[in-house]
Amino acid sequence: MKQLDSIARLINKFTKLPGVGAKTAQRYAYGVLDMTEAEVADFCDAMTEVKRTVRYCVECGNLTDKDVCDICERRDKSIICVVAYPKDVLALERISGYTGVYHVLHGTLNPMEGRGPDDLHIKQLLARLDGVEEVIMATNPDVEGEATAMYVARLLKPLGIKVTRIAQGISMGSELEYADEVTLSRALEARTEL
Amino acid sequence: MKQLDSIARLINKFTKLPGVGAKTAQRYAYGVLDMTEAEVADFCDAMTEVKRTVRYCVECGNLTDKDVCDICERRDKSIICVVAYPKDVLALERISGYTGVYHVLHGTLNPMEGRGPDDLHIKQLLARLDGVEEVIMATNPDVEGEATAMYVARLLKPLGIKVTRIAQGISMGSELEYADEVTLSRALEARTEL
Repeated sequence: MKQLDSIARLINKFTKLPGVGAKTAQRYAYGVLDMTEAEVADFCDAMTEVKRTVRYCVECGNLTDKDVCDICERRDKSIICVVAYPKDVLALERISGYTGVYHVLHGTLNPMEGRGPDDLHIKQLLARLDGVEEVIMATNPDVEGEATAMYVARLLKPLGIKVTRIAQGISMGSELEYADEVTLSRALEARTEL
Repeated sequence: MKQLDSIARLINKFTKLPGVGAKTAQRYAYGVLDMTEAEVADFCDAMTEVKRTVRYCVECGNLTDKDVCDICERRDKSIICVVAYPKDVLALERISGYTGVYHVLHGTLNPMEGRGPDDLHIKQLLARLDGVEEVIMATNPDVEGEATAMYVARLLKPLGIKVTRIAQGISMGSELEYADEVTLSRALEARTEL
């Protein structure tokens, strides 16, 4: 006996989700079998609804269910914080100290995977620089994030805009002993006076 | 800015799947956003289809899209292999040396979680013992699986049915050095002559 066709099909669908392999997909498919019909209908409705209502803000590229998102509508547009993905906006909003707006690039530069500047929302960033005083590059501190930050900075600086980068160093609560060498050397370089 | 309501709702749905926490559910919800509308519709269709067509075999309790599953219909009913879940049937069928039928209990005994004999498909097993010569207990070799195997064995033995248990020992390809003590002591006890 092999897997039933309908279950095999659902397993295949689950493998389309990020980071889901065959074993995990099978567990999820059996999980769906354990739901009631109403629960499955509700799940499908939630999925369809998200796809139907959620789109990108025409200004910043963040997720919204309107044309212009709440952040772009209400906040200080003289500072733009540039991130790679919508989930990074969520992370930054959790600290609630930032009052400016965001710009979502929808990716980072990665020549190996064929992602160049035209694949990111960089043109859209250049189109909204009127009255902007500072652009904070908040891409991840990895090779791609660094390259992207450098690239955007090199485009903006000649326009007379201050471009900054989020600080890198030892994470709060972590131990020096386990920090990698790059982090440690950056933390040392960027030391501040007490 | 908080998560959009529709995305929050979908994240919540994904946490209903087995082993999915809030972070993973968020990753999946964003994964759904990256799909096309056609892909999402197809995913929903697969989920609804599984729920609509798949049910339990009236004889063995395994998953099927008919009243009686293919295995119950075609194979030797004098041997029944008892497992906890439908996925265990799949695992055993992969070795393709077994010619008997199965019986799925849909769980194991676990007094701590309030799962007693009435919550398992044990009555259904007792109802199909006509002409059965051997019952193989193939529940997992953990505390619950062992307890369930012992419980079922004690019910069946007085009826004159041979009850066996799958062998326990060192897994093929594993190393003695890393085997746990229980496994090792069972492997030693169940030693066979060469």
